[in-house]
Amino acid sequence: MYQSPSSHRIDPNTGEMSGASGRYEKRLNQLAGIYGDEEAFAAASARDGERVVYYVHEKRPQQERGDLIFGTTFMEPGRIGDEFFMTRGHIHACANRPETYYGESGNGVMLLENPEGETQVLEIAPRELVYVPPMWIHRSVNTGTTPLVMSFCYPSDSGQDYEIIARSGGMAKRIVARGNGWAAVDNESYRPRSAEEIARVKASIA
Amino acid sequence: MYQSPSSHRIDPNTGEMSGASGRYEKRLNQLAGIYGDEEAFAAASARDGERVVYYVHEKRPQQERGDLIFGTTFMEPGRIGDEFFMTRGHIHACANRPETYYGESGNGVMLLENPEGETQVLEIAPRELVYVPPMWIHRSVNTGTTPLVMSFCYPSDSGQDYEIIARSGGMAKRIVARGNGWAAVDNESYRPRSAEEIARVKASIA
Repeated sequence: MYQSPSSHRIDPNTGEMSGASGRYEKRLNQLAGIYGDEEAFAAASARDGERVVYYVHEKRPQQERGDLIFGTTFMEPGRIGDEFFMTRGHIHACANRPETYYGESGNGVMLLENPEGETQVLEIAPRELVYVPPMWIHRSVNTGTTPLVMSFCYPSDSGQDYEIIARSGGMAKRIVARGNGWAAVDNESYRPRSAEEIARVKASIA
Repeated sequence: MYQSPSSHRIDPNTGEMSGASGRYEKRLNQLAGIYGDEEAFAAASARDGERVVYYVHEKRPQQERGDLIFGTTFMEPGRIGDEFFMTRGHIHACANRPETYYGESGNGVMLLENPEGETQVLEIAPRELVYVPPMWIHRSVNTGTTPLVMSFCYPSDSGQDYEIIARSGGMAKRIVARGNGWAAVDNESYRPRSAEEIARVKASIA
């Protein structure tokens, strides 16, 4: 009945995690619809659609309640138009589950949004831990010129709901290049969530 | 109803974590009974009982179920007799809750024991993540000559039971100095747990 303790070496540059039980990757052509500049996306995807934008190593020790899932995310630097490479983003299917992200190398931001549409942007850098509280939609963005590598940890019964972002036409803000840095700008396609959708999220708890 | 997202800078050398909601420390004179050499402990405690052996920075975002507690442990190098400085050790009061520990600086080991008395020892070093599965008693040990700093994460409804170790006369193994390294040796004071105690632990789940 006892699971085995385990140790996992994390390479801060490649995001490789020894002893991972799974790995998945997202290629550019799997990320249609998340970037504002659809023309720039279509051109990049036609040119280099098989390019891996990010990959994840993870250990899922147990699917049941009360355990933890942990791993790493590696994200290439790059842009589609003026918008930086980013993850699809999600809220936890069990919405009152949190997540920690810890910077291993590179520089980026965590873009956070609660169901009512309030935004927060927190910088990620080596040795910087970002706490994503329960009920917050979150997406990480590589605002640097080198890969962004983070380690993460979240409860094993969290689940992921990726569609909440698509249903609102994206997140309320986009992270775009400004000079040598970044800026959070309004996403013109964003549609605030209905009272019904907000109520549905608030009820998706345990 | 929404908690605020937060970011926390971790100093790998001091274990300071910005934005912590709490900090506690353990002084030598608060650690009576955990070391095998009671004479050496009494002498060290008389000489330098106020010495801080380890301290913890933590963020407890929410006490309720489903959230996460995270933080850092800083432990001085040192020994009592031939036994290395270590934490008191615990099993989670809700026994089927896990924990992750990630090496920030220094070198040590995680000493793990399940209720039946099976031992595992996993090395902790920078970039090495140790997964403590549900149901395992665990204690960290600084086997190096510099401070051991780790960051940790565990479910908010875990709780700590420190007395399980005292009730068995300590953990089954002790981590002692051997040459320039360490060895796990039998703890002669150890008393295997009774079937009743094991059943009690196995029932302390949720």
